[in-house]
Amino acid sequence: MTQESKEPAAQPSLLSFRANTRLLIGEGSISQLGATAQELNTRRALVVSDKGVLAAGHTCTGVASLEAAGIETTIFSQFTENPTTSQVDAGTVFAESFRPDIIIGLGGGSSMDCAKGINFLLCCGGKMKDYRGRGTTGRPLLPSIGCPTTAGTGSETQSFALISDAQTGEKFACGDPNAAFRVAILDPCLTVTQPARVTALTGIDALSHALESHVSTEATRVSQVFSREAWKLLTQNLPKVFIEPTDIHARAAVQLGAAWAGLAIENAMLGAAHGAANPLTAKYKIAHGQAVGLMLPHIIRFNGLVARKQYAELAAIAGLNTKTPDAALANWIHDILGQAGLSRSLGDAIGTQPAMSEFEHLAKEASAQWTSSFNPRPCLPADFVDFYQRASV
Amino acid sequence: MTQESKEPAAQPSLLSFRANTRLLIGEGSISQLGATAQELNTRRALVVSDKGVLAAGHTCTGVASLEAAGIETTIFSQFTENPTTSQVDAGTVFAESFRPDIIIGLGGGSSMDCAKGINFLLCCGGKMKDYRGRGTTGRPLLPSIGCPTTAGTGSETQSFALISDAQTGEKFACGDPNAAFRVAILDPCLTVTQPARVTALTGIDALSHALESHVSTEATRVSQVFSREAWKLLTQNLPKVFIEPTDIHARAAVQLGAAWAGLAIENAMLGAAHGAANPLTAKYKIAHGQAVGLMLPHIIRFNGLVARKQYAELAAIAGLNTKTPDAALANWIHDILGQAGLSRSLGDAIGTQPAMSEFEHLAKEASAQWTSSFNPRPCLPADFVDFYQRASV
Repeated sequence: MTQESKEPAAQPSLLSFRANTRLLIGEGSISQLGATAQELNTRRALVVSDKGVLAAGHTCTGVASLEAAGIETTIFSQFTENPTTSQVDAGTVFAESFRPDIIIGLGGGSSMDCAKGINFLLCCGGKMKDYRGRGTTGRPLLPSIGCPTTAGTGSETQSFALISDAQTGEKFACGDPNAAFRVAILDPCLTVTQPARVTALTGIDALSHALESHVSTEATRVSQVFSREAWKLLTQNLPKVFIEPTDIHARAAVQLGAAWAGLAIENAMLGAAHGAANPLTAKYKIAHGQAVGLMLPHIIRFNGLVARKQYAELAAIAGLNTKTPDAALANWIHDILGQAGLSRSLGDAIGTQPAMSEFEHLAKEASAQWTSSFNPRPCLPADFVDFYQRASV
Repeated sequence: MTQESKEPAAQPSLLSFRANTRLLIGEGSISQLGATAQELNTRRALVVSDKGVLAAGHTCTGVASLEAAGIETTIFSQFTENPTTSQVDAGTVFAESFRPDIIIGLGGGSSMDCAKGINFLLCCGGKMKDYRGRGTTGRPLLPSIGCPTTAGTGSETQSFALISDAQTGEKFACGDPNAAFRVAILDPCLTVTQPARVTALTGIDALSHALESHVSTEATRVSQVFSREAWKLLTQNLPKVFIEPTDIHARAAVQLGAAWAGLAIENAMLGAAHGAANPLTAKYKIAHGQAVGLMLPHIIRFNGLVARKQYAELAAIAGLNTKTPDAALANWIHDILGQAGLSRSLGDAIGTQPAMSEFEHLAKEASAQWTSSFNPRPCLPADFVDFYQRASV
């Protein structure tokens, strides 16, 4: 995402914290979707759910709960992973004909982001690119509920929709407190059916959210309450989930950790690992969690110079060496990529060694990413070339 | 407060978390009051501020910021500590004639609770007693902003208004997510002018909120994120504030701690120390923080049997003995009451030893308090008699 904040810069001494979303947590909590929509005085629900989630049966469970509560329901599922501007446009046309009074994102990050995108266009008109940045609507959107079936994106607790340009593949972020879900239903049972690779990719993404938001230039003593809690839950429980995917208590802890990390992002943004990963996804179609995971150790080592204290806090929580916390965390991420069955190098992920000229091109894109601007240590294009070289082997 | 929840009981396995209020934090943040009201699309502000806060000049600072933003403003200040039903009625009549589109509570708990009370009656009609319990409005209220000038009540981050019956003095709680402030402005500079005794009373109250909510029957792994953080900030910084009242960093940390504790209350309620304290305030006019503080050690010792693990966590955070955490915490509270210049016994607080028959009467009232029902170990009237006897010397 390459863009600027459209909000005026806050006074440097002021600190803002916002939690827009009520959490409803527990095994079987998806059965409360209908009652929750009813509390919001709604009668017509648009459920945005990708085809994988539909196939797993979760969408039907949600729809059954809505219909039992007397809420007329329809489903939009014509979108892919990393939903595009044209898919959101199509969803908006679909929504216009149905006239929902609530929008429900039921699925992974793609479903929740697509639901937010449709809400922007349905209520405020225009195109997704009109809403790049933060706080761009200035008016209420429809109430919405997020029901994550993965534990990674954090989309359930933050106000950003990540949408990809249908032409260029460039991913951009549209954030507005009005677009945040009113309620997120965290039912760990929905996450158990994920394919192992999806659990791995989203879990690593959640870890990276906790790590990057904890040290970002917008991190505060308030946002760090959430990044710290997310890190604790994720480091203690993600390894358990990789070993025993049906451990529902560990699944629940990972799901809550991912939601806290989303709240940390909402208040502190991310950093250069996401900046370095996005061009890899655009160019080589490397899955987001894989791309972030393989770049992260190199960004942590680079940031050690300026973020040692915060890294030491995270290292202590994970029971790691706090004297050289950047090395300890970088190694821990490297190890958990292996446990998750993911590639630890760019070469392994794409099956070849990119040429130096490719690195330079990628680095230019990475340094222009909005998310890179929140990295605690400023990164020049040459730094990104270095990261890619280190990550390639 | 003697009342029942009007919300249906949640499924036992479900857990809900709600943060209704955006926090705007920092020295001088009160200057953002006008801009914040403007963001909420408002033009006419009713500022509810008690006379002490008016005299300290804080109300004027807030009003100046509102007027600079082009917002027409008036002030209601005809109420006392522990605002009564008839004072809220009078404020509502005053508000009806001014027709505000935003209500601002600027002051301590009394100002913020009175502001919430006026909002209930102005928007939904009736009497305060109609709103006892939780979730009783079912409709939106006016947007509101809380600007605390004390660090104790937690009213800034929770949805309860505590109002006293004008006839009987009985305090009752009216809570509704719609009544919660949209934004709380936490400006530590506003807390520096508090008389030392107010700092002491409100600080002990905030500590008790962290302690009671952490072990209550409604405490969850989510609410405990906030009670834990509150406890950390308060135990580390309240002693500094008692020694050096102008230490603005310690003041800011205490203010944030009190706000986190309010969020913990919102999600987990309180316990028997508040239950035992309320009848003392009604009968002997003992200030709330004093009454809670002198009862708290005895409740902690009583709860040790069932809440040892949670107490051990809090003891560890405060650097206390974790093997007998109830005793360690009870002693620590006893000591900090002394540091705060408050009474450590009921006899000292009221200047005489109450008779046994008085204890029995007080105990009957205490055991009927709503807040007592959330104590982790059930308390019979005989238990409260025992607490009062132990607290009396």
